[in-house]
Amino acid sequence: MKPVEGRKRIVIEEVQPQVNCGRYPVKRILGDVVTITCAAFGDGHDHVAARVLYRQEGEPRWRIATLAPLGNDLWSASFIVDQLGPWQYTIQAWIDHFDTWCDDLKKRLAAQPDPNNPAPGAQPQDIPLALRSGALLLEQTAARAKGPDAKQLEDIVTSLRWMADQNAALYENPITEEIRALAARYPDLSFVTKFERDLILWVDRERARYSTWYELFPRSASPDPARHGTLNDVAARIPEIAAMGFDVLYMPPIHPIGVAFRKGPNNSVTAQPGDYGSPWAIGAAEGGHKAILPELGTVADFKNLVATAQKNSMELALDIAFQCSPDHPWVKEHPEWFIIRPDGSIQYAENPPKKYQDIYPLNFESPDWRGLWEELHSVFAYWIRHGVHIFRVDNPHTKALPFWEWCIAEIHKDHPEVIFLAEAFTRPHVMYSLAKAGFSQSYTYFTWRTGKDELQQYFEEITKPPVTDFFHPNIWPNTPDILHASLQTGGRPAFMQRFILAATLGANYGIYGPAFELCEGRPAKPNSEEYLDSEKYQLRHWDRSASHSIAPLITTVNKIRRENPALQNDLSLHFHPVDNSQILCYSKSSTKDGIENTILVAINIDPAHEQSGWIELDLKHLGIAHDQVFDVEDLLTGTHYQWNGRSNYVALRPDVMPAHILRVTRK
Amino acid sequence: MKPVEGRKRIVIEEVQPQVNCGRYPVKRILGDVVTITCAAFGDGHDHVAARVLYRQEGEPRWRIATLAPLGNDLWSASFIVDQLGPWQYTIQAWIDHFDTWCDDLKKRLAAQPDPNNPAPGAQPQDIPLALRSGALLLEQTAARAKGPDAKQLEDIVTSLRWMADQNAALYENPITEEIRALAARYPDLSFVTKFERDLILWVDRERARYSTWYELFPRSASPDPARHGTLNDVAARIPEIAAMGFDVLYMPPIHPIGVAFRKGPNNSVTAQPGDYGSPWAIGAAEGGHKAILPELGTVADFKNLVATAQKNSMELALDIAFQCSPDHPWVKEHPEWFIIRPDGSIQYAENPPKKYQDIYPLNFESPDWRGLWEELHSVFAYWIRHGVHIFRVDNPHTKALPFWEWCIAEIHKDHPEVIFLAEAFTRPHVMYSLAKAGFSQSYTYFTWRTGKDELQQYFEEITKPPVTDFFHPNIWPNTPDILHASLQTGGRPAFMQRFILAATLGANYGIYGPAFELCEGRPAKPNSEEYLDSEKYQLRHWDRSASHSIAPLITTVNKIRRENPALQNDLSLHFHPVDNSQILCYSKSSTKDGIENTILVAINIDPAHEQSGWIELDLKHLGIAHDQVFDVEDLLTGTHYQWNGRSNYVALRPDVMPAHILRVTRK
Repeated sequence: MKPVEGRKRIVIEEVQPQVNCGRYPVKRILGDVVTITCAAFGDGHDHVAARVLYRQEGEPRWRIATLAPLGNDLWSASFIVDQLGPWQYTIQAWIDHFDTWCDDLKKRLAAQPDPNNPAPGAQPQDIPLALRSGALLLEQTAARAKGPDAKQLEDIVTSLRWMADQNAALYENPITEEIRALAARYPDLSFVTKFERDLILWVDRERARYSTWYELFPRSASPDPARHGTLNDVAARIPEIAAMGFDVLYMPPIHPIGVAFRKGPNNSVTAQPGDYGSPWAIGAAEGGHKAILPELGTVADFKNLVATAQKNSMELALDIAFQCSPDHPWVKEHPEWFIIRPDGSIQYAENPPKKYQDIYPLNFESPDWRGLWEELHSVFAYWIRHGVHIFRVDNPHTKALPFWEWCIAEIHKDHPEVIFLAEAFTRPHVMYSLAKAGFSQSYTYFTWRTGKDELQQYFEEITKPPVTDFFHPNIWPNTPDILHASLQTGGRPAFMQRFILAATLGANYGIYGPAFELCEGRPAKPNSEEYLDSEKYQLRHWDRSASHSIAPLITTVNKIRRENPALQNDLSLHFHPVDNSQILCYSKSSTKDGIENTILVAINIDPAHEQSGWIELDLKHLGIAHDQVFDVEDLLTGTHYQWNGRSNYVALRPDVMPAHILRVTRK
Repeated sequence: MKPVEGRKRIVIEEVQPQVNCGRYPVKRILGDVVTITCAAFGDGHDHVAARVLYRQEGEPRWRIATLAPLGNDLWSASFIVDQLGPWQYTIQAWIDHFDTWCDDLKKRLAAQPDPNNPAPGAQPQDIPLALRSGALLLEQTAARAKGPDAKQLEDIVTSLRWMADQNAALYENPITEEIRALAARYPDLSFVTKFERDLILWVDRERARYSTWYELFPRSASPDPARHGTLNDVAARIPEIAAMGFDVLYMPPIHPIGVAFRKGPNNSVTAQPGDYGSPWAIGAAEGGHKAILPELGTVADFKNLVATAQKNSMELALDIAFQCSPDHPWVKEHPEWFIIRPDGSIQYAENPPKKYQDIYPLNFESPDWRGLWEELHSVFAYWIRHGVHIFRVDNPHTKALPFWEWCIAEIHKDHPEVIFLAEAFTRPHVMYSLAKAGFSQSYTYFTWRTGKDELQQYFEEITKPPVTDFFHPNIWPNTPDILHASLQTGGRPAFMQRFILAATLGANYGIYGPAFELCEGRPAKPNSEEYLDSEKYQLRHWDRSASHSIAPLITTVNKIRRENPALQNDLSLHFHPVDNSQILCYSKSSTKDGIENTILVAINIDPAHEQSGWIELDLKHLGIAHDQVFDVEDLLTGTHYQWNGRSNYVALRPDVMPAHILRVTRK
């Protein structure tokens, strides 16, 4: 079957960026310069013109960015995204007959034989006829133009025809760059080709790419070890956490905790009276996902906490864990949202031989999946109404991906500022799919990547396109669920190392705070990643004034992050070779207002020994000449070094300070 | 907005092969095993099952190939394409609850505490309840099954429930591999996910991938130098061309040649009486693209030629050049198919200062583009009716790409066997786009790739996916338009070298025959790629019995190609390092009926000097152990060599024989 219009002669392909052939949005941050590239070409030798059409979703008219040719039929254009939310972009390309004609005329004029000195064999180039062809094209252009432009184009038409009438032997080229530019403003789009798909782009706020998270259990926030912590206790601690340089305060679930099958300390299956249970066993007589555990306080206390955070330039992140204790109101009200076993009972979480009888998973194949989706969505909506704009979602990979795609889009319709962090530690396709479905940030495998090669390889994957087009990593050296073996055995140096890696490799990073600051490394049992006496099951009192605390280092590094835009992005991450398998070296850079900021990190990842070695800097990447002397300042100590050329020596003692964080100054 | 069915929990992505996200068909050859890979995964830990649906376009029902897991959520399946023409394929994936349950039961049975010897802390695993869950799933399976399978499934249900009723302390696993396989035949597709697109696949016949072309000008086919050659003369020559091992005989346009602005010998602008003009200046009083130049013969002669070719296991390829001489009937009948200049005249081909007044290009922006498309299509249809199934299309890149996409699809509807060779020497995107639009084969840049590195780099590009998914190269060392400088200066050794490269690097190759065999290297003028006294403008008499002819080499190599399936594909091409920049070494292989055929070529590309060097064979690629002695037979000479391990020495004299074509035998 013939196309409706067979004269659309341009092919447009290789449009970048695109995620899954346009199935999912490309992600960018407010204020980003978005660069679009594509291939666009037609048959024959006619000139092609092309442009990007882009707009915020819902804008009635496309905005336009002219594509510039890169050679070999490739094109590039950029635009700035100046609003949060969904954008669209696509490509238009067409044959530019007037531009083709301009070059044809130029060639003719150059080849036209001089009547006084004709080259042998040179033929007349039919200039008058060519001028009339051009006049015709400009006449059509004038008809598309408006106001003074139309008049000006008409005058040029008249002048070209007058020239043609002269029938001269030689002509000056009447076409100036100004005329070409004027004509280009009114292209002939009769046979324009539009790329087959309007691609989608999602614009997040800055904090989706650059954020600094502190996790604490409100249950342990009381200054009095004998008392259950409250939201007010958390509010009281906010100024000191803000002073450490954190901008997101994240709390595990704050909802009523189930009584049935409640877990005791160290995950014991039988709780004693007075045990508080796990905050992730959500729901009790007092309510479910929209209620607050009475011990923590009231809705009014929560509002006060939000306000206190705001006053201290911090944001609150809530943990949304879509699972229920047997006492959750949904269990009675909506048993159809759970899996019913042949004996009529509700299926609890199991991974034989393990039983988690305190947890009922939701059934995303429920006949009432629509009702379930609405209710889950309303949980986010509820807390957004209470001032929360960041959610850490627990185990999103055990809930249906289509649900997330719908739910996040639905929330984002009214609240494009909301950030969702996916707490998924699962297979790579699923991790990435959650990001594609809409999660703004994601936990990563960093926690288990401890060797030099595996760290470098993993970060090269997650900080480069195509992954960066949809995935923002958030780097955690620990979580309440993961105390990695390296922290169990490495002592304080290991905590310093893993902290510096997280905070400088990742523009987003976070720590499960009190345990991390105080270098808590005792596992529940050998070969376990669970903490001993985990806050998940009991209150803990943390002596934050202990002398071995690494809080001062954390404070310093967060300040460095804030003062150096280089550390506020991941895309610029670049590794430099070091001749020691225990030392990593990498740089990040950023340009703002024309000033380039470059940070170079050299870190010893061996917690037990001093390591030294020669860094072979990729000077070209750093924009430094091979024989240049340049200044590096260690921002951890304030010491300046004069470095010279590519080979530079470092020696790092893990017990003193395992890393240099160097600001590079090019003279 | 919620999806229609929110319980489709699987994501399918990374489906391979795909060309431009499914916009164009993937190409394969009749009998090929097509391997499809994809990623398919869901949330949580439920087991996933997946399959490829495929069919010839128009078949009412999909055929099914079960996808096997490759690990990490990747899957693979293969099927054989057993009919020419268009095929479709897509992916289905779903949660396999029964399979999930089988593994769950296995874990429970393993964890069930032995009542006589209970492990400390072991809990009962609720086996009876689990058996009832499985019975429920199998009951649903039975309801989907038919005949004896349904009965058998119902019996298993009964037996599972009977077991559950026993309430035993320990159980044997009742689920056998046979039961799993039986249940898998009746999957629950209620919430099946289908990949968002039906992908398309085009199946060509073998000759699209493996063909051997000989080009000659019928005007020079007469044994009598004084007489214009005829189609009958060509027919008389066919047995000897077939004996040389060619299977496609390709002739430049055979249509009436225009009189207006006819070109004389050596492209002189003024033809003399008796000059025959260029066959590409198509159309005269006697007719256009559906007529035969009277000097060549009649339609009956043409039919005889087709029959003679067939008798000799050859096919005729016609040259279709969509352009007109000023005398073409279309010019009078359809002036609207051409570009009309402001003075009312028709625009001839021009590239200032050059004028080609004997050629009128067609205007693909004609208001009557539909009429033009139909007429051009009818040219192919006409010659197909006269027994032609291969077309070499002249300069397809100067005709609109949407036209080709429509026209080739239209022809292929009734004639999927038709092969189109694109004679495009233009920018890479346009070359590839013609292949995507439907051209079966394409000329290449080989003619201008003479150095070792550029040859290797280019062939690595065009013989690997994604290019091989849509592009079949056809390798020509010369054409009537291109006598490369290396052939002008390199003498007979250069012709031998370029021939062997073409015939062994490309499963499809061709030569502009008589000129090539006889090592015709004289250019029209210095720095020109035009032949002196080109057949494009005059008759030539070729003395094919001349002693310097390389016809014997050509015959030998064509025989080697025919006898060695390794040389009948491009995908297996693999280069091996040689420590001499003038020697290339590469292998190809093929497995047919379980027997592997491997050919290794070592070739000196310096026409002036003997070159020798050490080949470092990629033994792993060849399937040879590092210390193995193996036999190689030079099929050009019949000499056997014992080679040993990876380093092997070659010395090649270009004047004697610039290459070894070695058949590798693994003991």
